[in-house]
Amino acid sequence: MSLSAIFTYLAYNELTTYKEAPITMQDFRFHNTTDIRFGTDVIDAGLHDAVTQFGNNVLLVYGGQSIKKSGLYDRVKALLHDLNITELSGVEPNPKIDSVREGQRLAKENNVDVILAVGGGSVIDASKVIASAYYYDGDPWDLVVKANGADRMKLNQLPVVDILTLAATGTEMNFGSVISNPATHQKLGTQGPNSPAVSFLDPTLTYTVSAWQTAAGSIDIFSHLTEQYFDAQPANDASKGMIEGLMRAVIKWAPIALEHPDSYDARANLMWSATMALNGIVQLGGQDGWTVHPLEHELSAYYDITHGVGLGILTPRWMKFILSDDTEALFARFGRNVWHIDNGSDREIAELAIKKTYEWLNLMQIPMTLPGVDINDDQYFDAMAQSAVKVGHLDTAPYVNLSVEDVKKIYQDSMTPEEF
Amino acid sequence: MSLSAIFTYLAYNELTTYKEAPITMQDFRFHNTTDIRFGTDVIDAGLHDAVTQFGNNVLLVYGGQSIKKSGLYDRVKALLHDLNITELSGVEPNPKIDSVREGQRLAKENNVDVILAVGGGSVIDASKVIASAYYYDGDPWDLVVKANGADRMKLNQLPVVDILTLAATGTEMNFGSVISNPATHQKLGTQGPNSPAVSFLDPTLTYTVSAWQTAAGSIDIFSHLTEQYFDAQPANDASKGMIEGLMRAVIKWAPIALEHPDSYDARANLMWSATMALNGIVQLGGQDGWTVHPLEHELSAYYDITHGVGLGILTPRWMKFILSDDTEALFARFGRNVWHIDNGSDREIAELAIKKTYEWLNLMQIPMTLPGVDINDDQYFDAMAQSAVKVGHLDTAPYVNLSVEDVKKIYQDSMTPEEF
Repeated sequence: MSLSAIFTYLAYNELTTYKEAPITMQDFRFHNTTDIRFGTDVIDAGLHDAVTQFGNNVLLVYGGQSIKKSGLYDRVKALLHDLNITELSGVEPNPKIDSVREGQRLAKENNVDVILAVGGGSVIDASKVIASAYYYDGDPWDLVVKANGADRMKLNQLPVVDILTLAATGTEMNFGSVISNPATHQKLGTQGPNSPAVSFLDPTLTYTVSAWQTAAGSIDIFSHLTEQYFDAQPANDASKGMIEGLMRAVIKWAPIALEHPDSYDARANLMWSATMALNGIVQLGGQDGWTVHPLEHELSAYYDITHGVGLGILTPRWMKFILSDDTEALFARFGRNVWHIDNGSDREIAELAIKKTYEWLNLMQIPMTLPGVDINDDQYFDAMAQSAVKVGHLDTAPYVNLSVEDVKKIYQDSMTPEEF
Repeated sequence: MSLSAIFTYLAYNELTTYKEAPITMQDFRFHNTTDIRFGTDVIDAGLHDAVTQFGNNVLLVYGGQSIKKSGLYDRVKALLHDLNITELSGVEPNPKIDSVREGQRLAKENNVDVILAVGGGSVIDASKVIASAYYYDGDPWDLVVKANGADRMKLNQLPVVDILTLAATGTEMNFGSVISNPATHQKLGTQGPNSPAVSFLDPTLTYTVSAWQTAAGSIDIFSHLTEQYFDAQPANDASKGMIEGLMRAVIKWAPIALEHPDSYDARANLMWSATMALNGIVQLGGQDGWTVHPLEHELSAYYDITHGVGLGILTPRWMKFILSDDTEALFARFGRNVWHIDNGSDREIAELAIKKTYEWLNLMQIPMTLPGVDINDDQYFDAMAQSAVKVGHLDTAPYVNLSVEDVKKIYQDSMTPEEF
């Protein structure tokens, strides 16, 4: 039986004939030692030992008042009552380099053995850079900006234990951080030598997350998946298939979490999908050239908007912009396997998939235009586009290369509601 | 907008209404430190350092003549020419406890620092138990049989580095081994304290794998996925979605590998799907009660047949046997998301999905009945069923519990070709 006959026989919709692809699966290395503890109240039995395996001098890093209001702060302090705890509070969303500088000072002055980060992506991102800065004598901004963090990779790093309170960035199981410098309008990614040592993922800790942050976090997860899914690697089916499954989980459970904030399964699926979306696994074998994140980082850097909301505004415009004869097959696969669209030509399925993506984002009760987040004119679009192309290598790295003019067009398209 | 309106609007086929499930996602811990090196010729740059990080005294474990014929043996010896290498060869498929005993003796006599396993699942499985037996003074069969390996978990373990030559069992990134004892007709699983330290996954090393072994390995991967997919956990969408994607990758690429043994993408997708299918990730949050493997282990223990072929014979009979009003929704989900079956009632889609699974297995050019593997009478069916239920806890653990009579019925159904 010929292969085409086999595939016809299997009624297998995608790629019904086989020819060797011009680009094969990429080589990779995967080594991720983060110890994940997932479930209700996992900190009660596990936190003390997870921290003290590294020592008794702890730098506790957190954000504002939310962990005090929720009682989590008191629980953590009670569980670790016998340890020496130094505190760094006030880490903001889009974490600022000043918090890292303060953490570096506190960590050095108190000879801390381990950093305990309690919060969302911002708190954990800042903690991971502080963990490197402990072993560095200069300004930690060097570790972010120099060769995109290459200096940081060479350093030792304090172990980071974290208690995650927001499903979004995936920082709880990866090597990256994103740090902002308001003085220079920069928001940059940096990679450290290690992922967190132990991450506690308790979905019930996210019951109190607001609808706004739940939506933004879910969109962030979805965007991490699209960034890794849409690439020029045609044969990477193991990873693409896993991404499709995670996308369906987020599409299904995010609206449920908005209406039922205390649904365990909604919070659990979002939390684990967030981790899986960016712990390195689903990118393996792929091209990994990101586009929408570099575009959004400029919005956040210039206007300090919520990262996930910016991604939600930009993603469907980027999809529409890059849809072409060259990309329609992959968008059609996205439509079939993620959105269950079964009828039509590749182009028709692709267009409907983008429309459904936009409508799903719109259901998340967040603004879907830049004016909706108080970006009312295009005065910085040129500077932002220049920076996005440069920092994100958008002229060479992504699935579809973008020029400065292309990026400005996507920003411009984001000023008004989309029509389909 | 109500949730049901949202799901109708999204045309989202599965679970169009939300109600809190009676069983929520299970708590879990995940900690897997295996260092994966994936790609063409990855051993050339990486093998020497990967081994010598643990020392210079190496126990090299392999099977028969195939790595000598392929030249891999000479490559490995050349790359490690400056190390002290002791060899254990002749590890057979369904690896026997005698190989482990011999490995234990050699490892102790030569004070080895690290075990280098070069081969498929059998060679690596045996090496992982030898690595524990190095720290044990009794018969290593104790480490397999006593409390299902509980003794082994408490032992230290030599580091295992492996070079995988067959995509199938997933042993290259997990804690398990399956060891056979012909004297007692037993084939049992055991868990060690560590997964392999470093695993080299080079798809080109599997170009020479025979059609028979390629089919058997692919079916083993598919079976690992079905064992973890079919459970009573209704809300575990992140993991179930990833499993569906991996199933589609195996369904697509296994027939291509049979017709084009040197297709890099076919071999790469099968190899990485094998690892992902059983490195622990896709079971997270699920029930993890296996059925077909315990049934097949009895066939292999009594008749020494190829494991994957036995799984291929049993899987569709098990599916037909457990399809009911209670299970049809999950089988229908399997049909929609894996087999792209879009029309019909849940029961119709479920039945068609099982039929397609059978036909896909049948396309793999392996026998699809027990007489096809020279099991021509039912003389051991009762003893095998008794053992399968006991060892596999089939009366309490699986998705659908099975009695001894149920298991005998599935063996009996496997004597003749299936009709749909």
